[in-house]
Amino acid sequence: MSSAVLLIHCPDKSGLVASVSDFLARYHGNILHFDQHVDAESQVFFMRAEWELDGFQLNKEEIGTQFELQIASRFDMKWELFFSEERPRMGLFVSQLSHCLFDILSRHEANELAVDIPFILSNHTSLEPVARRFEIPFFHVPNSKDIKQNAEKTILELVHLHKIDFMVLARYMQILSAEFVEQFPNRIINIHHSFLPAFPGAKPYHSAHQRGVKIIGATSHYVTSDLDAGPIIEQDIVRVTHKDSIDDLVLKGRDLEKLVLSRAIRHHINRKILVYGNKTVVF
Amino acid sequence: MSSAVLLIHCPDKSGLVASVSDFLARYHGNILHFDQHVDAESQVFFMRAEWELDGFQLNKEEIGTQFELQIASRFDMKWELFFSEERPRMGLFVSQLSHCLFDILSRHEANELAVDIPFILSNHTSLEPVARRFEIPFFHVPNSKDIKQNAEKTILELVHLHKIDFMVLARYMQILSAEFVEQFPNRIINIHHSFLPAFPGAKPYHSAHQRGVKIIGATSHYVTSDLDAGPIIEQDIVRVTHKDSIDDLVLKGRDLEKLVLSRAIRHHINRKILVYGNKTVVF
Amino acid sequence: MSSAVLLIHCPDKSGLVASVSDFLARYHGNILHFDQHVDAESQVFFMRAEWELDGFQLNKEEIGTQFELQIASRFDMKWELFFSEERPRMGLFVSQLSHCLFDILSRHEANELAVDIPFILSNHTSLEPVARRFEIPFFHVPNSKDIKQNAEKTILELVHLHKIDFMVLARYMQILSAEFVEQFPNRIINIHHSFLPAFPGAKPYHSAHQRGVKIIGATSHYVTSDLDAGPIIEQDIVRVTHKDSIDDLVLKGRDLEKLVLSRAIRHHINRKILVYGNKTVVF
Amino acid sequence: MSSAVLLIHCPDKSGLVASVSDFLARYHGNILHFDQHVDAESQVFFMRAEWELDGFQLNKEEIGTQFELQIASRFDMKWELFFSEERPRMGLFVSQLSHCLFDILSRHEANELAVDIPFILSNHTSLEPVARRFEIPFFHVPNSKDIKQNAEKTILELVHLHKIDFMVLARYMQILSAEFVEQFPNRIINIHHSFLPAFPGAKPYHSAHQRGVKIIGATSHYVTSDLDAGPIIEQDIVRVTHKDSIDDLVLKGRDLEKLVLSRAIRHHINRKILVYGNKTVVF
Repeated sequence: MSSAVLLIHCPDKSGLVASVSDFLARYHGNILHFDQHVDAESQVFFMRAEWELDGFQLNKEEIGTQFELQIASRFDMKWELFFSEERPRMGLFVSQLSHCLFDILSRHEANELAVDIPFILSNHTSLEPVARRFEIPFFHVPNSKDIKQNAEKTILELVHLHKIDFMVLARYMQILSAEFVEQFPNRIINIHHSFLPAFPGAKPYHSAHQRGVKIIGATSHYVTSDLDAGPIIEQDIVRVTHKDSIDDLVLKGRDLEKLVLSRAIRHHINRKILVYGNKTVVF
Repeated sequence: MSSAVLLIHCPDKSGLVASVSDFLARYHGNILHFDQHVDAESQVFFMRAEWELDGFQLNKEEIGTQFELQIASRFDMKWELFFSEERPRMGLFVSQLSHCLFDILSRHEANELAVDIPFILSNHTSLEPVARRFEIPFFHVPNSKDIKQNAEKTILELVHLHKIDFMVLARYMQILSAEFVEQFPNRIINIHHSFLPAFPGAKPYHSAHQRGVKIIGATSHYVTSDLDAGPIIEQDIVRVTHKDSIDDLVLKGRDLEKLVLSRAIRHHINRKILVYGNKTVVF
Repeated sequence: MSSAVLLIHCPDKSGLVASVSDFLARYHGNILHFDQHVDAESQVFFMRAEWELDGFQLNKEEIGTQFELQIASRFDMKWELFFSEERPRMGLFVSQLSHCLFDILSRHEANELAVDIPFILSNHTSLEPVARRFEIPFFHVPNSKDIKQNAEKTILELVHLHKIDFMVLARYMQILSAEFVEQFPNRIINIHHSFLPAFPGAKPYHSAHQRGVKIIGATSHYVTSDLDAGPIIEQDIVRVTHKDSIDDLVLKGRDLEKLVLSRAIRHHINRKILVYGNKTVVF
Repeated sequence: MSSAVLLIHCPDKSGLVASVSDFLARYHGNILHFDQHVDAESQVFFMRAEWELDGFQLNKEEIGTQFELQIASRFDMKWELFFSEERPRMGLFVSQLSHCLFDILSRHEANELAVDIPFILSNHTSLEPVARRFEIPFFHVPNSKDIKQNAEKTILELVHLHKIDFMVLARYMQILSAEFVEQFPNRIINIHHSFLPAFPGAKPYHSAHQRGVKIIGATSHYVTSDLDAGPIIEQDIVRVTHKDSIDDLVLKGRDLEKLVLSRAIRHHINRKILVYGNKTVVF
């Protein structure tokens, strides 16, 4: 089934729900999902509407133009339009740890993720065999503090060449520069292995062990130039006890990382996420 | 702030969202919450709309009439209308266990529950001092298999006399007859101390212990004439291990029962629940 | 049933388990629980042994002396001995929020907590009626930055006069001075309304809302002179979404605070907690 | 590091802990883990002791004989002895669903599971490419009600030929006969896609959807001749709402199945599980 998704935010006002739903009804759009939210503090209105394209009396090219003309312009709306038929293209960035990579690739193969994966990119070569096994192109782009500028230039070329829509840092251990990150707002998803804002930065499992917490977590967020401080998409946790060594935390944490990252990717692919300020609305 | 809530369900059709939101916009209703859901299997449409009464250009008496006339009749809608100012009246049924009773009364006193409690009713007298401490009338209505008919007659009189809107069985250990229950569809909330449909009936903690489960649960549901099989409102669980005796399960379970029952009561009071078939939509 | 509990920690060495279990077996102690843990990093051994006093061939006065003489001195053990018959005396500190107070008192009344509560102490008078309802002495000791020294002098006198074994800060909004706290190591339990180490200090729900986290938490810990940084006893969490306002977080958080604090109190009363460095072993 | 594990159960009696720990101390065994549990109802004692072999003054061949002679015979103990160096051999049974298979194989490749996998066996051929990719022998053994007897004969031969220690049914959709199952008590691990004892048998996600539960689960258990009723090893759950279709339940459930099954396998491999009656003690 072919559908369209509208993501909208604008200053809150009376009549917003009616205006958008009228627009869809006027062209005989059969609504599949219709979610709205008002942030009471900032008085911002958020909406996600998904409807069937089959039977809709505007063709794909006209929808955006007509929506802007008839509705968006009146309410000062920021909006995005997506079609379920157009699979986004996801660039996968990894380092040496395989668990998130395997998890994403096996979900992809089982048709859990409606996405194309034009390449896997790593600063090491150790996961190349995994990429080969799943028949996905693998690029080795060495990266480190000293050569970051050159590395990011190469990455940028690959991203453009392969028409990447969004990137996933699946335990990619390099920090991307502000210059790079700012070119892709809300288009780079990271998994951080702690319950943010607790334990940002390096070695969170060590810090968690030292602090003696009874629960550890993982956080998936959009990358901003502020390290581990971007808009949070999804978090989850697992209990630990004094019996758990750092190695146990790493092992338990891996399961969280896989779960949390894959949920975040799915929300992104399904166009369920609206970012406002430094927060997300996940419908 | 004074608001109105519409709960609607009807056969799914194009234009439902637009029609309801138009109706509200026409009279300058400022929407606070607007949730809809379509059950894909049964093709039933569900909606909950909440809007501010302040500035709404229909008075409270006209809203229902006009909504029926203009909208509901066209779409074969079943609907209910509630006003936030009208606090529902909740009858509390208990037996000898105090934990749910204390929990509800302390929440009530802390203004967590926008509800009036005209009475506490029990088949025992042991919790009368608790009722007295919170200054709520207490009725002792002995009940058991043999005298159920008379007991329920008394209960019915109390319910009508005190204009009870809905009842909460806060570990009330008696089974209400089908005749009684059928007079109050979706208006009697029970807490069952298991993860239904596992372990219905008596002594679920004993059964859970014997089965060796690693997780126990609690379930809050509307009471129907079918024991522990009514529409589920809320469930939650907690981990247990081989170390937990039946007494430990009872202790851990109490915390679940309190949480799950109080969430169900809050959803009911806030008019968040729609029942269809034997299932709930909780917006 | 009357039982004794030994809590032990010492440098790890071969033969520790055998020595302690031999000691208990020698006097015909029937072991109820026997837990041990070795912290691999610090090479510290922890043990909790609980056994029936009935039939044990040392009387209560001799146990400690003989254990020190025969076992502890050989292994450089730090140990504590407790008897189930001796109910600890718990001082309850509150401010204006009632939820934790009600929760603790109703658990106490339902015999969930084997503890005596000689007094409730508050820097406000608003919860005095609750104390009266449960027939527990209430002391109003005004406290604030400026008068802290005097207030703590009064508190200290009350603690000594009433032979308080440990204190529980059940949302007591005052910070106790280092001088005060250091007199009661591992004997003051606090509940902090965040998932520490995230959001220490004031207004954690506001901070959580602003950061846009998808999960909030509560943490119970022993109080040290380092604010919100003492050894963690218990933590738990609940999911939140963009729909949850700060008020919703406060409401959901209350349920966590009650649960987490009551579990910590129960662990403490049941002598399940060993503190080492800034971490806890909870058997 | 090379270690030994003793799993013991016997009628409860004084002196059990002392006897076993004395035995280990006598030969200078450095204890790594020492867990015991008494089932109060059945008066059965359970123990798991793990100690370093390095420096232990009995060689591997003598340990069992001496333990039986000196300790086990006196207390009527049932015991098993394992050595960490001897990796168990796991037979993997699958059908057409790939998620559990991918999960186990990627964990195996990342050294999360200290186990050998001599073969993957399926009643279909669709997952053969996955086996090939991980370079594990794949056997296609067609199976169905009518040919079960022959199929199980073939399976039995493969199990014996490859010296399989235990089998994992990773969403293997065939029911093994009582004759087969009874030859491998506590050596066949299954994953059932519901929160047992709720929804045993076929299509649990459909049943859960129809019942309108708010939480779904997965259960890993040892297979007995009684369908889905064997000793439970591990369970976990995830929240669902009215928004979740059956397909959504299937998708969410997959993540549970992977987690729960892998935890059960790890417990089994690490010799953490004792089965008594129809229940497990998982240390």
